[in-house]
Amino acid sequence: MPPIRDHRTLKPTDPTTDTIALRPNFRQQGFWNPTHVFAHERGARIHRMDLNECPYPPSPKVLAAIASAAPDLNRYPDGTCPVLTGRLSERLDIPAAQICWGAGSTQLLTAVAQIAVDSGQELVAPALIWRRFCGVFDVVDAALRTVPNRDDGSIDVQGLLNAIGNRTRLLLVVTPNNPTGLMLSHDELSLLAEHTPQNTLLFVDEAYFEFAAYAGGPDALDILKHRHGPWVVTRTFSKAYALAGLRLGYALCSSGAIANALRLVTSTFNLAGVAEAAALAALDDPDYTQMILRTTAIERERLTTGMRALGLSPMDSVTNFIGVDAGMDAGYVVRAMRERGIRIATFGYEAAGTCIRVSTGLPEDTDAFLGALKEVLTSAG
Amino acid sequence: MPPIRDHRTLKPTDPTTDTIALRPNFRQQGFWNPTHVFAHERGARIHRMDLNECPYPPSPKVLAAIASAAPDLNRYPDGTCPVLTGRLSERLDIPAAQICWGAGSTQLLTAVAQIAVDSGQELVAPALIWRRFCGVFDVVDAALRTVPNRDDGSIDVQGLLNAIGNRTRLLLVVTPNNPTGLMLSHDELSLLAEHTPQNTLLFVDEAYFEFAAYAGGPDALDILKHRHGPWVVTRTFSKAYALAGLRLGYALCSSGAIANALRLVTSTFNLAGVAEAAALAALDDPDYTQMILRTTAIERERLTTGMRALGLSPMDSVTNFIGVDAGMDAGYVVRAMRERGIRIATFGYEAAGTCIRVSTGLPEDTDAFLGALKEVLTSAG
Repeated sequence: MPPIRDHRTLKPTDPTTDTIALRPNFRQQGFWNPTHVFAHERGARIHRMDLNECPYPPSPKVLAAIASAAPDLNRYPDGTCPVLTGRLSERLDIPAAQICWGAGSTQLLTAVAQIAVDSGQELVAPALIWRRFCGVFDVVDAALRTVPNRDDGSIDVQGLLNAIGNRTRLLLVVTPNNPTGLMLSHDELSLLAEHTPQNTLLFVDEAYFEFAAYAGGPDALDILKHRHGPWVVTRTFSKAYALAGLRLGYALCSSGAIANALRLVTSTFNLAGVAEAAALAALDDPDYTQMILRTTAIERERLTTGMRALGLSPMDSVTNFIGVDAGMDAGYVVRAMRERGIRIATFGYEAAGTCIRVSTGLPEDTDAFLGALKEVLTSAG
Repeated sequence: MPPIRDHRTLKPTDPTTDTIALRPNFRQQGFWNPTHVFAHERGARIHRMDLNECPYPPSPKVLAAIASAAPDLNRYPDGTCPVLTGRLSERLDIPAAQICWGAGSTQLLTAVAQIAVDSGQELVAPALIWRRFCGVFDVVDAALRTVPNRDDGSIDVQGLLNAIGNRTRLLLVVTPNNPTGLMLSHDELSLLAEHTPQNTLLFVDEAYFEFAAYAGGPDALDILKHRHGPWVVTRTFSKAYALAGLRLGYALCSSGAIANALRLVTSTFNLAGVAEAAALAALDDPDYTQMILRTTAIERERLTTGMRALGLSPMDSVTNFIGVDAGMDAGYVVRAMRERGIRIATFGYEAAGTCIRVSTGLPEDTDAFLGALKEVLTSAG
């Protein structure tokens, strides 16, 4: 290793010059790292209830599949995941050519906006939406027209349709929505599918699809298949399959043309070499997935009941997280909880300044969260 | 699983309508899958000498690190790779804030173009360049000004500088270049670093850096550190560390502002949860990397000598692949070799229509390649 020199001896490039080399929408961007571990947290027990992760490790069958595939990591994998695509094509009754894979559905979120929206055009979305989408909107440099959510946090579907204008190229909804955990009804999805214009891409992010299905919710895909116009649905192996770290999500598209455009943006080699084998093993272990869905529902109920006992009114989530108005500054609550070893999230928007979001975890995470929240609400009161 | 229905019973969306929803540069894009396995190849021995992969599996230490990290794949990893970044920061003498990680350096190639070049602006690059960059140029929808390579395939550095105009925002070189295997000299890199204007991002892709260093080549980073103007260098764990399937590359940037812009485009969660641990283990096993570099040089020499014996004049590569003019249509040669179980590549450009590219492999791959190539050249003659 070369000797460690003092960085101050380097003559750095003038930051002003560097910024000139960036497109205007990329200048002076900060970077927020949601997984950052503060110095005082190192070695301490942390209850991670801020990223809507599954608290259980991947299925033992998945871990065996990864170990079996790892010696081939010197090779580039086939990013079209031919076996897995065939499986989903049958299961979901959609041609294989209309299925595209992403390094997590997160990669596909940006990609969908990139293929559809030019600078100066417009996206329409609910005001309350997963805050990661703010990064997406920055990347495409398009105008964002937001529609306020209803008082109960639900999405105003008619309001979204009314907001569509001549320059609108993309209408985006997340269902079940993040950070509220609320889902659109069959009728609301049908209304969107029918009335979103044919020159507007209807994008439905279903990252929490499996949880919604377990709760008896509608299947956006079945509704969109009857739409006369372009659409994309995104789903992921990150949540119900306990594979957030695998980075594997997929887009179901109304045509092969849209899927090909997504493949172009996400690049030929975007998936880890162990991803397809791991996903197939996860699909082959439905008992494990059922265990995750069942325990998630149990802890969600315990969190909800516990928060009600503290005088709060949690939203009616069907997912592995719950939104709730804490009645005091959300940033304060998040910091105070973090000091107690519990990580939770704000809603990420000024307008929802007293709302927090907590992910379901293990039973001990629920206990720790409720105990700490009681302290925080009481001490601030 | 739901019953398998005939896809023809679906009423598909009108493809014309779907295309209207796409930005013009994304319409009617084909998709080329370089890893596709043809029906007749299934189960057969295939010599993969077309993707510049390492023929050896990852180091046993890397496989152990992956197995150890896999049970945490239910969690999102820290995409800033703090420990690995600290290691590289010391080793390369560059502040950690100027290091950004990508899902392979491939993801960063598109990202670098996206942060710097608006629609209607311009990129300058050599005509002979890795053909994956064509996908990059499609994505950013910018004008591409190419500069012919010299007769020996090398990059015309002065020509690149002369081609820079008022609308040029990015100057791109790959060194050692793909598909030629030739590298820029210290003086050529210095010329680029000094004379590329301050409002133009100088992008040097060093995917084959370790091979060049092993051959005594210059280090672009050391030269760029003295540039007065923005720059990015990309490198990868895909090649010399036998980890193409891990998807881990990095960008070294002239400023934290550029690194942050790249982080925004590549999204917060772009890396697999096992990537950082695997890369650290790879860095901790320099003997294995040296074995890869040494055997690569040996097989490269055997391939070169063997092709010369067949009357060809292979280019003077320092990498794990060799470019050579086969003297007959490259597409024909690639197909004829593939029929014999050997996968190689064309240069990917009409203008280089008789040039092929072969990756180094195991000794038996070299033998199989030379035997088959003799057949192909003779039978066509």
